[in-house]
Amino acid sequence: VDASFECLDYEKIQDELTNEEAKKYGLSVKLALAFQRNIVIFLTAISTGLCVASIDFVEHNCLYFRFDFLKNQFENYFGRPDMYFLLFSYWLMLTLAPAMIAGLLTVFIEPASAGGGIPGIIGFLNGVNVPKIASLKILIVKIVGTMFMLMAVLTTGKEGPIMHLGVILGASMPFMHIPFTNIRFFRLLQYNRERRDMASVGIASGVSAAFITPIAGVIMALEECVSYCSAKLTARILLGSVITSFSSAFLISLMMRNCIGCVLNKELLFLTVHNSFKYLDYYIQEIPMFILTGIIGGVTGSIWNCLELEISYLRQRFFKKKLYKLIDLGVLTTISAISSFIIMLSITECHGGDSHKHLPENFQMYCPKGEVPTVGLFFFQNDISLMNTLISEEGKIGVIPLLALFVYYFVFTAAFMGASISGGVFLPNLITGAIWGRLFAELLQELFPDRTKWCHPQKYAFLAAAAHLCGASRICLSLGCIMLESSGKAIFGLPIFVVIITTKFVADMFTHPIYHAECLLRGMPLLEKTPPPYCSWIPVRNIMNKNVVALPKVTTIRAIWAVLNRTNHNGFPVVDPSRTSTEDGIASYGQLLGLVLRRRLMIIVKNKLYRGQQFEDSLKIIRNQFASVMEVFSAQDNQIIGEEGRETIDLGPFMHVSPIFVQMGTSFTSAYALMAGLGMRHLLVVNNSNEVVGVVTRKDIAVHKSETTCCTVESKVVPLV
Amino acid sequence: VDASFECLDYEKIQDELTNEEAKKYGLSVKLALAFQRNIVIFLTAISTGLCVASIDFVEHNCLYFRFDFLKNQFENYFGRPDMYFLLFSYWLMLTLAPAMIAGLLTVFIEPASAGGGIPGIIGFLNGVNVPKIASLKILIVKIVGTMFMLMAVLTTGKEGPIMHLGVILGASMPFMHIPFTNIRFFRLLQYNRERRDMASVGIASGVSAAFITPIAGVIMALEECVSYCSAKLTARILLGSVITSFSSAFLISLMMRNCIGCVLNKELLFLTVHNSFKYLDYYIQEIPMFILTGIIGGVTGSIWNCLELEISYLRQRFFKKKLYKLIDLGVLTTISAISSFIIMLSITECHGGDSHKHLPENFQMYCPKGEVPTVGLFFFQNDISLMNTLISEEGKIGVIPLLALFVYYFVFTAAFMGASISGGVFLPNLITGAIWGRLFAELLQELFPDRTKWCHPQKYAFLAAAAHLCGASRICLSLGCIMLESSGKAIFGLPIFVVIITTKFVADMFTHPIYHAECLLRGMPLLEKTPPPYCSWIPVRNIMNKNVVALPKVTTIRAIWAVLNRTNHNGFPVVDPSRTSTEDGIASYGQLLGLVLRRRLMIIVKNKLYRGQQFEDSLKIIRNQFASVMEVFSAQDNQIIGEEGRETIDLGPFMHVSPIFVQMGTSFTSAYALMAGLGMRHLLVVNNSNEVVGVVTRKDIAVHKSETTCCTVESKVVPLV
Repeated sequence: VDASFECLDYEKIQDELTNEEAKKYGLSVKLALAFQRNIVIFLTAISTGLCVASIDFVEHNCLYFRFDFLKNQFENYFGRPDMYFLLFSYWLMLTLAPAMIAGLLTVFIEPASAGGGIPGIIGFLNGVNVPKIASLKILIVKIVGTMFMLMAVLTTGKEGPIMHLGVILGASMPFMHIPFTNIRFFRLLQYNRERRDMASVGIASGVSAAFITPIAGVIMALEECVSYCSAKLTARILLGSVITSFSSAFLISLMMRNCIGCVLNKELLFLTVHNSFKYLDYYIQEIPMFILTGIIGGVTGSIWNCLELEISYLRQRFFKKKLYKLIDLGVLTTISAISSFIIMLSITECHGGDSHKHLPENFQMYCPKGEVPTVGLFFFQNDISLMNTLISEEGKIGVIPLLALFVYYFVFTAAFMGASISGGVFLPNLITGAIWGRLFAELLQELFPDRTKWCHPQKYAFLAAAAHLCGASRICLSLGCIMLESSGKAIFGLPIFVVIITTKFVADMFTHPIYHAECLLRGMPLLEKTPPPYCSWIPVRNIMNKNVVALPKVTTIRAIWAVLNRTNHNGFPVVDPSRTSTEDGIASYGQLLGLVLRRRLMIIVKNKLYRGQQFEDSLKIIRNQFASVMEVFSAQDNQIIGEEGRETIDLGPFMHVSPIFVQMGTSFTSAYALMAGLGMRHLLVVNNSNEVVGVVTRKDIAVHKSETTCCTVESKVVPLV
Repeated sequence: VDASFECLDYEKIQDELTNEEAKKYGLSVKLALAFQRNIVIFLTAISTGLCVASIDFVEHNCLYFRFDFLKNQFENYFGRPDMYFLLFSYWLMLTLAPAMIAGLLTVFIEPASAGGGIPGIIGFLNGVNVPKIASLKILIVKIVGTMFMLMAVLTTGKEGPIMHLGVILGASMPFMHIPFTNIRFFRLLQYNRERRDMASVGIASGVSAAFITPIAGVIMALEECVSYCSAKLTARILLGSVITSFSSAFLISLMMRNCIGCVLNKELLFLTVHNSFKYLDYYIQEIPMFILTGIIGGVTGSIWNCLELEISYLRQRFFKKKLYKLIDLGVLTTISAISSFIIMLSITECHGGDSHKHLPENFQMYCPKGEVPTVGLFFFQNDISLMNTLISEEGKIGVIPLLALFVYYFVFTAAFMGASISGGVFLPNLITGAIWGRLFAELLQELFPDRTKWCHPQKYAFLAAAAHLCGASRICLSLGCIMLESSGKAIFGLPIFVVIITTKFVADMFTHPIYHAECLLRGMPLLEKTPPPYCSWIPVRNIMNKNVVALPKVTTIRAIWAVLNRTNHNGFPVVDPSRTSTEDGIASYGQLLGLVLRRRLMIIVKNKLYRGQQFEDSLKIIRNQFASVMEVFSAQDNQIIGEEGRETIDLGPFMHVSPIFVQMGTSFTSAYALMAGLGMRHLLVVNNSNEVVGVVTRKDIAVHKSETTCCTVESKVVPLV
């Protein structure tokens, strides 16, 4: 666990000021809160929809030119080995150039925008203060980077980045203000708790915009946020998800079909399953095949996970410098381009099916009229169209091309996942699965030649796509929903969930889910909902930090200033230092009176709120400066405090009067349940006389991990470094 | 709030015995737990599927004879007013007889099986020990009662009872044992926490079986259980839901279509939307119409709620005796039969559409060949077929018959909801909505005669069905999922959620959700996830119970026996009585050492576990007797204890060593967040010296309710009676 990660505090602060506010303005605060929340949800949803529609628009138009140009070159030069170098130069250039632009943006402008961003989202929603989750810079870099990534046509998808965009928008919307001023619109939503809720709305919006699936968006949010979700928050998430789906569908229709007012018709479905429904009927005899698909998915997903983690680990170890990261990306892109070029040239199968409407017109090369080269299906349409070809094409796709494509996707999705480019693995993994699903169906048809009634390659491609992604990511419910909702075929629910459940069960025996493994690799202090086993006899006494910085209730400015400068703690217990004792050899810091947070102390000291201002003034200052206050003092502050440092301050009105605390003898398990259940960042520990003796932070308990495999279960402590 | 309701305790007990067990047998306990859980999920799912399939089978066959017989009578006697009395007698008898049998079962054998059962489920999952949630008797009465209810063809649905069946099966499966012995199969799952989890699996199974919608089942469970759900539990719920869908679809195919091995095809879909897709396209101009549908749904749902609650209130006040309840049901059924008979005779419209495949063959009466009487559609098919007629019939259904049917359904669904018969309001409310949806579309067609392109009565029937039910029940996400998944048309997601969100917003301004209102009417101590407002300045001191019964750590059997006989408390703090003090005028009971539960004390005293048995023996006895131990002593016990009462007992090894507690000065809000967040039944209160001064029970905090309407927000205390 990386000690540099800070955590978020979701506990509600109850101090005299907020109590006073509730008493005086209860109703208006409540109404303002509801109003601001709805506005923020609305803005998040609409802006997510807009981002997605613009990315789609740019992708659509640029790829059109790319494919058209390359098609012409291939038509001209195919069969003339002397021109292959020129051909390859075009091929490489059109791949490498946009990829390197995306890489440059990521490496030099905003390294936090690399990858799909889902590990960061998981961390943030779990309570880890992932750096730069909410800034304008990452937003812009992410959008532009994703556009360039798409132009390069690599084995990376835009779905992860879109979810990330939703979360960035949701988490940063509450901080919206008029630039260069301190005029903020959503003052009541600046707290971590509200931002977390808005980030949940954001993740739902992201999924909903990426796949135009409102339900799957909500379910993804519920799966990730289930530890704190309430019925009211669910309703808010649903609202955001529906508005996003509507707005993105509307904008995409408008931009790409010039249809004003259209919202959704079948053609906007993300996954286009063939409408002839016949392969959606199924029989109980097929269940073993579904289970087998699930098992294979669990195995391939696990192998893919191991490969990816190995690459990530190497990358984290050796490619630390910015330049190295860029070279890493360049080399990888080049190898990928070489591989795809070799596949393009060496496989000359033709395909007579009907699913080449997304290919450039008159794309024929060496094929007879009415047919297209199979490799054209692979590299001359974008990833969504490729996915749709795999799951809906009635015609046969040869085994050799499928095998080549499988190796290409399997290796390069894993290689690109940790590279310095904004791109995810959601759709690429679905494609990998769909490829082996078709291969699996071919094998079945060989084995049971009389079973053509049920053994449709499309069906198994559809199921295997879900199986492979589930094996890698262990996303279950929301993955199933995305598949069903985006194909519009809810009737397919049973087989897909049989596959997903089997896969999860199998894959859980071998590896961690990829996103969680990535979080752990980065050292995020994640908390599971349930405490690790074998810890109920460890008393809190053994794990707490004993060097607490406690503040007396009445103190001087200078003392507070010194404490704030000296430490970087986030919360300070307020104590009565006249009552101390020593128990079990542990000296106490004084009787517990309350808890005061760093940010609030900074505001108090900077604005001299201790001088007995009016309640309204104090409240206004605290609200206004909450987000903008710096965490350290400037030189100017230091000077002022140096002059006025002898003034006394009573922390009574500013402290959280009813913090949750436990006793030294309380078990680790109870403390864990408390902190994970209530989303706390620090838990105070007192002795038998209610005197503060220590504090347990989130990181202290997050180092205890449960380790479960198929035949062992244990609890281990990972070091905090 | 009714003081007679007991609550459930979901806190994990950590005592020396369980610690010892974890140390010695950690892995095997973990594996056994996983194994037992999966077996129980499997049994729950399969048995729910079996119950549903048998109910469907009986309904299908009995209704066939009923409709066929009545059809012949109507064909013979229609137009001959002298025979109308005989006709009416047949009509009434075939309605009243099964209804009264169902009523007799409910009233005299198991009153807890009345109604749909959803309020009871909500209470149980929230932590209220609803009586008889798990017994064989209620299971059988519920199944048989539901069958007879269905034969009577009233405005009651079988969906609520099926969900209830799922929960009964889930919650009682852990207690499964060989009859008349104490040999139990699932000893590790007998605790409240595990039973709650299994009940969540049960509710998902119920929904999943009733509508054959695996995702909607999971979502219903998540919506109801969101306050304690974890990712692992979600996976288990999903497993249960999928197995149920599979097994019920398989059994229904087998029983009703004689198709061995069939699982699911389009014809098993619960809602049959016309496949011509054309009315599933929609434009942004239609959004105002969707919003209008939502608003109307909010208003009609709220009015229906008020009507229902008024009737429930009267019923609760005046019909307390069993005989009265039966008369109530009889009179209601008779009035309902008279009304439907009048509609049958007075409306003589004919219908030329194609949706009469569920009517008895050759049903014609006064209509020309190829047409059927419109009223036949209403009363000569079961409720699911009626619903499907309303949402898929292309032909016009007249305004007058629709209006008559609307009044009939609106009034009688409300009247039957609280009656002593096993039947819910889920499908009847959908039908009510679908009826006014068709009426609304007729009105729109009058207003915009050129808009026939979008204004399809089927579409508005579909949307209005969701709107009306959402207005009444405020179920959002799962209702939308049920509608989408059971119709197989996931593409319809956006309009349906626009409608549902609008409805929820509108209806929340007027009334409580019907199921929660029913819970409150029954006086269940429900806890919301968020604390009521304006309570953060109330210290726990003001609301705690001061008369705690504390036990010293070392005491005599006689003392424990006396305490157990005298009080009915569920938990007793274990204290060191030598350390007491008085603070703020409140005397303490001694320093807090732990907490011991009543059930465990009973086992210890009865089995003389204080005599220093082997750890294995004690553990075995505690596990074996956990579920079967009586809560009071028998005369024999009393005698034995009278003889041996002087022996001393050390409660140390048996107590929960790390109970959560708060201080007297802790705010109500913090205590509420703790108890609701961790599912606690009692929270100990200590003074500054860590000495027990009181206890806060769930009921103490459940009496504080938040009261929010459109323009006020306040917190009130309802009396505990």
